[in-house]
Amino acid sequence: MNKKSPLAPDRFPTLPLVAGVTIGAASVGIREQDVSDLMLAELEPGTAVAGVFTRSTTASAPVEWCRSALRGHRIRALVANSGNANAFTGKAGLASVKRTAAAAAKLFHCSPKQIFIASTGVIGEPLEVSKITKALPGLANQGLRPDGWQDAAQAIMTTDTFPKGAARTATIAGETVTIAGIAKGSGMIMPDMATLLAFVFTDASIPATVLQKLLVEANQGSFNAITVDSDTSTSDTVLMCATGKGARHRKVTGAGGQTLRDFRAKLAEVMVDLAHQIVRDGEGATKFITVTVTGAATKLSAHAIAMSIANSPLVKTAIAGGDANWGRIVMAVGKSGERANRDRLRIRIGGIKITEGGKARKGYDEAPVARHMQGREISIEVDVGVKTGPKGGRATVWTCDLTHGYISINADYRS
Amino acid sequence: MNKKSPLAPDRFPTLPLVAGVTIGAASVGIREQDVSDLMLAELEPGTAVAGVFTRSTTASAPVEWCRSALRGHRIRALVANSGNANAFTGKAGLASVKRTAAAAAKLFHCSPKQIFIASTGVIGEPLEVSKITKALPGLANQGLRPDGWQDAAQAIMTTDTFPKGAARTATIAGETVTIAGIAKGSGMIMPDMATLLAFVFTDASIPATVLQKLLVEANQGSFNAITVDSDTSTSDTVLMCATGKGARHRKVTGAGGQTLRDFRAKLAEVMVDLAHQIVRDGEGATKFITVTVTGAATKLSAHAIAMSIANSPLVKTAIAGGDANWGRIVMAVGKSGERANRDRLRIRIGGIKITEGGKARKGYDEAPVARHMQGREISIEVDVGVKTGPKGGRATVWTCDLTHGYISINADYRS
Repeated sequence: MNKKSPLAPDRFPTLPLVAGVTIGAASVGIREQDVSDLMLAELEPGTAVAGVFTRSTTASAPVEWCRSALRGHRIRALVANSGNANAFTGKAGLASVKRTAAAAAKLFHCSPKQIFIASTGVIGEPLEVSKITKALPGLANQGLRPDGWQDAAQAIMTTDTFPKGAARTATIAGETVTIAGIAKGSGMIMPDMATLLAFVFTDASIPATVLQKLLVEANQGSFNAITVDSDTSTSDTVLMCATGKGARHRKVTGAGGQTLRDFRAKLAEVMVDLAHQIVRDGEGATKFITVTVTGAATKLSAHAIAMSIANSPLVKTAIAGGDANWGRIVMAVGKSGERANRDRLRIRIGGIKITEGGKARKGYDEAPVARHMQGREISIEVDVGVKTGPKGGRATVWTCDLTHGYISINADYRS
Repeated sequence: MNKKSPLAPDRFPTLPLVAGVTIGAASVGIREQDVSDLMLAELEPGTAVAGVFTRSTTASAPVEWCRSALRGHRIRALVANSGNANAFTGKAGLASVKRTAAAAAKLFHCSPKQIFIASTGVIGEPLEVSKITKALPGLANQGLRPDGWQDAAQAIMTTDTFPKGAARTATIAGETVTIAGIAKGSGMIMPDMATLLAFVFTDASIPATVLQKLLVEANQGSFNAITVDSDTSTSDTVLMCATGKGARHRKVTGAGGQTLRDFRAKLAEVMVDLAHQIVRDGEGATKFITVTVTGAATKLSAHAIAMSIANSPLVKTAIAGGDANWGRIVMAVGKSGERANRDRLRIRIGGIKITEGGKARKGYDEAPVARHMQGREISIEVDVGVKTGPKGGRATVWTCDLTHGYISINADYRS
């Protein structure tokens, strides 16, 4: 395993129990011997499910399966493995997914369409599915616990250097419910609709159609707002399960309105937390970078400019070197193709104003900016000067620097 | 200076004289002391000019100047410096360009609008233009020679590790004419309409409007088909000058037809040659990669897919590591967002068929592919299976691998 990211949190958070969910993991030899690589979650009957997936046109077999299964709105179990993405594996890949679903459906006495499947790892190598199907009964019968979060988060890691989890409590019309999630991802991260793997669970009772709206909304400002290397996976999957087994609360009928206000806010927090953890574990990352763009023509335009900055290899290597080379930010704004007023462009790094009137400020002192660049948490703010005030499009995205570590990991590791 | 690229040609080619062109260089202290950093070319009166420039919305002052000057269709001198891009320098930047143009116009007894200017180097730092204006008279009077190509090519280098030049002779209706060009560029290279700096000269007599069409056409398959790091410069400039001082040939009235057939072919060769040299000098490059996509919905779609592969950090790091990790090519096709038939995707590396029917071929042997990956010249061919045969969109692009060298150069160097 690679050395733990310097941006990693001290420890895996203590996640609360979510009524109706048990979860666990096993080592079945897909990734490496004696490394946990299979996770299973059981959801009580009646659990609603929502999902968002990669937009890749070469999506993996499990992604195609989940997309189709989502139409049933119900989930009984979630099976995820690391070490093999079961992507670009042809008809055999789909057959593997079906065998896994059938095996799990038998264990949980449900339709195979209530089994959701995710795989991450090497693309293009056949998956030895019998390793999964043989291990499922033991894991289902003896390996599932209400507090198995960390084991599960560990089992879905690939080049990740730490397991990722987050939780919040929320109130729905006065009743307290719980939201907990786990995620993985550290390379091939520039989600387009979704990210690698993230599974979020709640004991609230929320219909699948409403859950889907909440998930899509929360996804926009979290997993869709991060990038490590601009590469979009074939396997990006975010699933959200609502068991309805927690405190009884007022019936939820729609996504809007007051009832879900707090729940939506807390869901956003959980997903942003997980998304940040993915960036903090970006391959080779040594710095966590927040890019905020304001004053754009639209919100979408602001997002595109922010991503252009966050994906620029020259910006990311300058930050890796602790170099306050803001000229590369100008370049990245320019290459985005989005509207920007060069002569009103305002750039701040670490909160310090650098430019004004289309050039460096008079008497600009690089010293405090250089000090900020030496830190672990880098802030870049750009106002592109197209629309001022609250009318201006605004977006924040998060990324990490591009270092020798990224090259070492990816020139050697077969992922 | 960085170590010479392992992909560099043995030596600078011997470029022929182009009647009507004299060229030279000087060291004026913009880049480093005693490093050549200013080039000047004098074109005989009446020389036609064409140009393509960066699409960046934060284009540099010299790019804006050239765009405007191009409307006059005539060039009398070309002034280019390295070490400072004069980009994002506000009104002072434009004033610097005007002072340079005025100084050169005085020397060559022409309108300032016949002086073309290009700058490359650091973004956002004021250019000490007096270094240029003071040096121009000496350079103009004593420094220009018909064979000064290599000196000029050297003066426009930044992180380049070798000077770049190419030439061909062509016939126009039986008469022989000459085409010669120089170029620079090694980082911030993902041209969008044009690349960093390339200057092409011919002694043929071609009206500026026709020259512009020829340049745009040749640019599509050369500078627009290369990428080093997906970053588009604020300063990309390709200029073409036709002196009309060579062999007298049949009058050229349009870009199409038989008369310019050979000239167009040879111009394309010169520009592809220069474009390849830029890739071979890509920052940190150790391998030259040709990506060809066929079977796409359109030519543009093929180009977008090829660029998605050529810009993928994961594909480029795999190649750096000599890893035949073709799964990442599948990923890059998928993330392009362009139409592709996953189950008919055919990938070849080094000419060896790898996939068939949406998965690895039966009995696929990695050994010969692995051998190919150890070489300096890597070939990737992808048929995306949307349209078969000659109806299928087709495009070729060129790139280099992504190595520790790129990180070292860009985490330290302020460009």
